[in-house]
Amino acid sequence: MAEKYEDSQLYKIRHSAAHIMAQALTQMFRPGEVKVAIGPPIENGFYYDFELPRSLVPKDLKQIEKRMKKIIKGDYEFVRREVSAAEALEEFADQPYKVELIEGLEDKDAVISLYTQDKFTDLCKGPHVATTKDIDPNAFKLMSIAGAYWRGDENNIQLQRIYGTAFETPEELENHLWRLEEAKKRDHRKVGKELGLFHFSDDVGSGIPLFTPKGEMLRYLMESYVRETQTKYGYDHVWTGNLVKEDLYAKSGHLENYSDVMFPVMEDADKGVRFRLKPMNCPSHMTLFKEMGKHSYRDLPMRFAEFSTLYRYEKSGELSGLTRVRSLTQDDCHIFCTADQIEEEFSLALQLITEVLDRYKLTDYKVQLSLRGDEGKYVDDNEKWTKATAALRSALEKNGVDYFEAEGEAAFYGPKADFMASDALGREWQLSTIQIDFIQPERLGLTYVTEDNAEETPVVLHRAVTGSTERFLGVIIEQFAGAFPVWLSPVQAVIIPITDVHMDYCKDVEKRLKDLGIRAYLDDGGDRMNKKIRTAEKQKVPYTLIIGDREMESDSVSVRLRGGEDQGATLMADFIAQAQAAIAAGD
Amino acid sequence: MAEKYEDSQLYKIRHSAAHIMAQALTQMFRPGEVKVAIGPPIENGFYYDFELPRSLVPKDLKQIEKRMKKIIKGDYEFVRREVSAAEALEEFADQPYKVELIEGLEDKDAVISLYTQDKFTDLCKGPHVATTKDIDPNAFKLMSIAGAYWRGDENNIQLQRIYGTAFETPEELENHLWRLEEAKKRDHRKVGKELGLFHFSDDVGSGIPLFTPKGEMLRYLMESYVRETQTKYGYDHVWTGNLVKEDLYAKSGHLENYSDVMFPVMEDADKGVRFRLKPMNCPSHMTLFKEMGKHSYRDLPMRFAEFSTLYRYEKSGELSGLTRVRSLTQDDCHIFCTADQIEEEFSLALQLITEVLDRYKLTDYKVQLSLRGDEGKYVDDNEKWTKATAALRSALEKNGVDYFEAEGEAAFYGPKADFMASDALGREWQLSTIQIDFIQPERLGLTYVTEDNAEETPVVLHRAVTGSTERFLGVIIEQFAGAFPVWLSPVQAVIIPITDVHMDYCKDVEKRLKDLGIRAYLDDGGDRMNKKIRTAEKQKVPYTLIIGDREMESDSVSVRLRGGEDQGATLMADFIAQAQAAIAAGD
Repeated sequence: MAEKYEDSQLYKIRHSAAHIMAQALTQMFRPGEVKVAIGPPIENGFYYDFELPRSLVPKDLKQIEKRMKKIIKGDYEFVRREVSAAEALEEFADQPYKVELIEGLEDKDAVISLYTQDKFTDLCKGPHVATTKDIDPNAFKLMSIAGAYWRGDENNIQLQRIYGTAFETPEELENHLWRLEEAKKRDHRKVGKELGLFHFSDDVGSGIPLFTPKGEMLRYLMESYVRETQTKYGYDHVWTGNLVKEDLYAKSGHLENYSDVMFPVMEDADKGVRFRLKPMNCPSHMTLFKEMGKHSYRDLPMRFAEFSTLYRYEKSGELSGLTRVRSLTQDDCHIFCTADQIEEEFSLALQLITEVLDRYKLTDYKVQLSLRGDEGKYVDDNEKWTKATAALRSALEKNGVDYFEAEGEAAFYGPKADFMASDALGREWQLSTIQIDFIQPERLGLTYVTEDNAEETPVVLHRAVTGSTERFLGVIIEQFAGAFPVWLSPVQAVIIPITDVHMDYCKDVEKRLKDLGIRAYLDDGGDRMNKKIRTAEKQKVPYTLIIGDREMESDSVSVRLRGGEDQGATLMADFIAQAQAAIAAGD
Repeated sequence: MAEKYEDSQLYKIRHSAAHIMAQALTQMFRPGEVKVAIGPPIENGFYYDFELPRSLVPKDLKQIEKRMKKIIKGDYEFVRREVSAAEALEEFADQPYKVELIEGLEDKDAVISLYTQDKFTDLCKGPHVATTKDIDPNAFKLMSIAGAYWRGDENNIQLQRIYGTAFETPEELENHLWRLEEAKKRDHRKVGKELGLFHFSDDVGSGIPLFTPKGEMLRYLMESYVRETQTKYGYDHVWTGNLVKEDLYAKSGHLENYSDVMFPVMEDADKGVRFRLKPMNCPSHMTLFKEMGKHSYRDLPMRFAEFSTLYRYEKSGELSGLTRVRSLTQDDCHIFCTADQIEEEFSLALQLITEVLDRYKLTDYKVQLSLRGDEGKYVDDNEKWTKATAALRSALEKNGVDYFEAEGEAAFYGPKADFMASDALGREWQLSTIQIDFIQPERLGLTYVTEDNAEETPVVLHRAVTGSTERFLGVIIEQFAGAFPVWLSPVQAVIIPITDVHMDYCKDVEKRLKDLGIRAYLDDGGDRMNKKIRTAEKQKVPYTLIIGDREMESDSVSVRLRGGEDQGATLMADFIAQAQAAIAAGD
């Protein structure tokens, strides 16, 4: 298990850097002018909030950094003192935010700790580095200035916040800054626009992306690939539409727990019917299982998969590109099985997920195994929990999956496993999930006949591989920075004639490639050749095929690879073999 | 152009048979006891409504038929007389329904015609056959008894209706009866149940089918085939979800003309937003066209296709199996083009539709070309109508399509062509459609830049090939009586071991077939071999592969073809070639 961030040296470095930043800023104003609020370490750095006589401007940051470096050089010790509330109030008499914090303490007798470096003292629990020199003066950077309400309450005064970051080494800082820059370049909203993949329209509604031909091709290829893989693993696909009567969600329990996130009801008052857009598939798949008639233990496991677009009425402020949408197409599956089949089915699902994530080069992932905690919310059936938990642990270990356990993180209906995959920039995404459900099958009255001719309720495993097509597409746009592997590129080859006399041969090349299932596109537009080449490059097309006299005469194409490498004249037969090999290899 | 039914000899035969049936029935009761209402020819026969002192029972039909044959033998002439209303009232004094009809005539001075055969006179416009002997006594049949309200109004008295049918020859009658019988056997609701393709659930809602793994496979194969064909024809696919803000339909005009058939609104009163499930794709595709930015004439035509599930709130009484549903997945396409491109695009769409219908052996079809009439509802732009109509006629003729024109049947927004395809029983289905739209593109503000750098509104062609996946599936279930061509069969081969010792080889055969994309299913259930063979036969699986010692030793399978023919032991390599050839041939 990894060390907790809160216990790490990095955390201390950032925390101490925040104090040093506050000291540096204080030096830039007259005594008493700077009112300090709070300054904690955060995920990728630290910040500090201040009330100041004037607004900060970006060039202030340079000056603060300079002063910070000087303080660091001073090698000042971080000295901890423990005082009473009364002493602390005296110490911070001219710092109203600190006073408010001290006065707000519930335990009036608590020991309050102060940390001092050089001439600057802060109210602080610690811990800190030993001396300011423990911070590498070349491994920190102030990032930005922002407004922030005192205590996050918009009725309070607005303070000025400075964000900074710090690492143990300059190389780590460089790497972090590069990743930030790279993440900005790869932002799927930006890349999606550049590649023309999707649009949002006020006429249709927030959070409902419209996919262009290229964007739809990506969706289609992704879903086809998962479908094919699911079929290989013995999954069946079903179809259950986009809505159900609200009563079904009353029965399943979703109406009670989930109505916040459902789209508004569709009510036919005359007929007394209320419909809801599906926010999930489980009750629909379970209804189909029931409608199909009596099931025998011999029929189990049954695995129902569906690429159904679900609708969730997320708050408009929380919508973000493709990663938080209102229309999401889950690659959802429900596995109906006996309790004894849990381990095998879980194991099969693990293998399937691993195979799919590999295909997208998401090879670095770990699994959070969420188990029940002490709270009362969990289904009260010790035997089921114990057996299922043992089955999941065993499957994870047999498959050599890197996992960690999180107690109290299970759903109320059973334990679950969530995949956290790291992308090319090392960012973690929660994608795939496998959840055991002891509850819904019973609520909806599902049964099968056992070998002993008894009626039993099946266990259901909920499982998603990529999560949703939309969100996963957002993630892989950033993962590949829009330069998708050949198999996934909406356009695999752009054909560019040098002059119009080469057009007929270009058309022939396009047709031959298309007949082989290679997504070729002939750029017969009015732009000049160099412009067309630049366009293909910007569109991150894997192969640009330029065709002139020489190519026509030898049934060749001049191949320019994505990234700019000129492969030169290549016989059509060779190019076809090359492209097909890349597609097959998943490159 | 075919003779109109109303002018045909068949129409007269049926009309006269109705009179003879009324006479025969009158003979079975005491004078004055039978009150005759009306008795017209209908699509496949005729009926007559009566008020009678007792309820008819099925065996009455036999007796009536016997009496009818006697009347026919009598060779009675059908004599027409023309009388005044007063004379008619006197003639039918004891027939209250006839009196009501005569008194209801608007033109009090109209000449009223009566037809008499033998001793039976009816109020009737005609025409009739010359004598009762013109009806072949072996070419008519009484079909059923039903209740029917006088004048179709449920507040009126309920009469008894007898349905009958008549043809020119006994062979035609036989053929008709066979088709009725066959249609009953092929009813897609019945076959769908037998093959386990889909279910309806009260929990989900009327008219929303749930598709089992087999049913979903059919949907998937159908949609994949159309998608592939569309791609070959240069169509692009897009994705626009299942709902839009209601305002969009106010702009497009659908809210005004189409709200009856929309699902109830989803209203977020707090935010003042109203959403509607999409009953059609056009406004969504046009919105995407706009969002994609400026378009040049060089970009046109653009063809946006989508398999989107649409929702129409059909009245529950009108729902019927898959052919009238509330959730329908259209294979919808919108072609954005210039006025000059209409003929070429229409022609391309005709070819695509023809190719797809052929694949389903719907080779006998004709096209109704619907043109504008005199009414004021049509868009007032003579030039556009004239030009578009000429383009459509020219394309139909160049493609050798059998078509007829229907004036006044166009949509208000432009002319259209509807395909009426005949199935294996000769029944006509309206499936594909191509519609020209001069209106919506303008309403929604679509433009492109012309060669002269001017802004112009594109023409849009709406086009559907199979119509909707659900309805088309209903039609082809009946077309093939559930015995789908091999390429479309959800299960293509069932593998049956003679005993358990053959199971491992069976698994190997299953895997080899599946790896080649052949949908094989190993029946490893507990039934005996013969039961398994019968099940496969009932499930209309194209190939049943039986495996015992002999097969295992020679890497063969014993092939039983659908319909029962025993092909005998076949080397695996040969069977694979056979199945692949059948799939490729579309058999």
